[in-house]
Amino acid sequence: MDPSGLLDFFRKKDLFAASLGIELETMADGYAKASLELTPEHTNGLGIAHGGALFSLADLAFAAASNSHGTAAVAINATISYVKAVSQGMLVAEAREVSRSSRLATYTVEVLDEGGSPCAIFQGTVYRKKEPLLPQADS
Amino acid sequence: MDPSGLLDFFRKKDLFAASLGIELETMADGYAKASLELTPEHTNGLGIAHGGALFSLADLAFAAASNSHGTAAVAINATISYVKAVSQGMLVAEAREVSRSSRLATYTVEVLDEGGSPCAIFQGTVYRKKEPLLPQADS
Amino acid sequence: MDPSGLLDFFRKKDLFAASLGIELETMADGYAKASLELTPEHTNGLGIAHGGALFSLADLAFAAASNSHGTAAVAINATISYVKAVSQGMLVAEAREVSRSSRLATYTVEVLDEGGSPCAIFQGTVYRKKEPLLPQADS
Amino acid sequence: MDPSGLLDFFRKKDLFAASLGIELETMADGYAKASLELTPEHTNGLGIAHGGALFSLADLAFAAASNSHGTAAVAINATISYVKAVSQGMLVAEAREVSRSSRLATYTVEVLDEGGSPCAIFQGTVYRKKEPLLPQADS
Repeated sequence: MDPSGLLDFFRKKDLFAASLGIELETMADGYAKASLELTPEHTNGLGIAHGGALFSLADLAFAAASNSHGTAAVAINATISYVKAVSQGMLVAEAREVSRSSRLATYTVEVLDEGGSPCAIFQGTVYRKKEPLLPQADS
Repeated sequence: MDPSGLLDFFRKKDLFAASLGIELETMADGYAKASLELTPEHTNGLGIAHGGALFSLADLAFAAASNSHGTAAVAINATISYVKAVSQGMLVAEAREVSRSSRLATYTVEVLDEGGSPCAIFQGTVYRKKEPLLPQADS
Repeated sequence: MDPSGLLDFFRKKDLFAASLGIELETMADGYAKASLELTPEHTNGLGIAHGGALFSLADLAFAAASNSHGTAAVAINATISYVKAVSQGMLVAEAREVSRSSRLATYTVEVLDEGGSPCAIFQGTVYRKKEPLLPQADS
Repeated sequence: MDPSGLLDFFRKKDLFAASLGIELETMADGYAKASLELTPEHTNGLGIAHGGALFSLADLAFAAASNSHGTAAVAINATISYVKAVSQGMLVAEAREVSRSSRLATYTVEVLDEGGSPCAIFQGTVYRKKEPLLPQADS
């Protein structure tokens, strides 16, 4: 179910996430979940998942959660701490809203490996614009 | 010139950076410069460069600068602040070493747009392992 | 109860926290809780709690949680996001361990106001030394 | 010289900074410099400068630089990386503006020890309100 069309919007329009193989699984008010099946294209010279790949997975969950209320939100900053090297398997990122005001909102994201252990934690803030993310349907 | 072979190693072995079109241009002691020509595949649903794309560009410069001394370095954490939205053109990231001890080292990275204005600033720390990044040549 | 003496050590030896009125309430494996009663001395020119005061409260909880295993841990980096301005009342900070290896460990800290709403969230990493924090008792 | 009265405002009204012994030395457009003479009250249980003391010094420079344009600015987030332990002497923090729009502005801060070596680097973003920091004089 995606009555607002937001999930569909993210899946079709976020070309960067799509090109990396990142899938947006769930989107709800202030929440989102995304996943990534690691392949050799996600690794660095040491053969482990690239910092940019883990960040991009967390970032998509962050973007979806922060845009879940229907108004456009743009990232101001983000921090990632890498807590466990991972080289294969399905990774999952879950973003949760910590706080939201009319202009700003803050989220935490956990990236978990296939066994459910944290690989990275992420914290980020968005600036919330006044315009809706999607054109409003006539009603 | 690449007497140590490190630049060549990064260019060939960092499959993630290569798949995104990120190029490592220069690598020197505690310094690296990378670039990315933005295409629609680097954009998000709002049509601007994805936070993950800017981060990945900065991250490659950070990785190269922190591995420039020849011992393997792995990222502990990184922070990015987005200061200007950008949707096209050639981006450049420059990483500089702030401090380095036997175990830890810290870097700042600036991401500039084609006109030389900052799009993002980045700060990160690595853990320095004892082993060399590349196998040592016989001598 | 403080069989290890660590809680007592922090209360007596952390002169900075003591001078600010920050109290360490609880310390357990990978966990700590600290509190601060806001006074005018904790405010900035706008009359709200100073960023440095909220950070210092979170930092003490982070330091206690990361030293709770008995080996000395020193901070590598920390990030704080301010999510709600606060000007009075009792603040509480709770630090929780996300991950720990032999050399590194990462923590999240929540700072809550008197009503239990988040004022700030914090994420930080320590480097774990090999030496014990306290001299070992004979046994 | 302080034609705008802002330097004087910070010196008198930032009670937290004053109580820690932090002095605001200079304030110019998008720039500020602050200093702190370390005493035992700024140390932690290991006898080195407390993370909260270094952060608070950097934070005052950040606050002054971000309020230097005369409109009230409040911190959204800040990150600090500790690059060298320090236990005594005069510390100096310099904040510089990276970018500023009508609503957001981002700064970097370097904290240097007495010999001019970096102890910590800091990066932070503010939300810029519309109201002036000080009441406007009649004219």
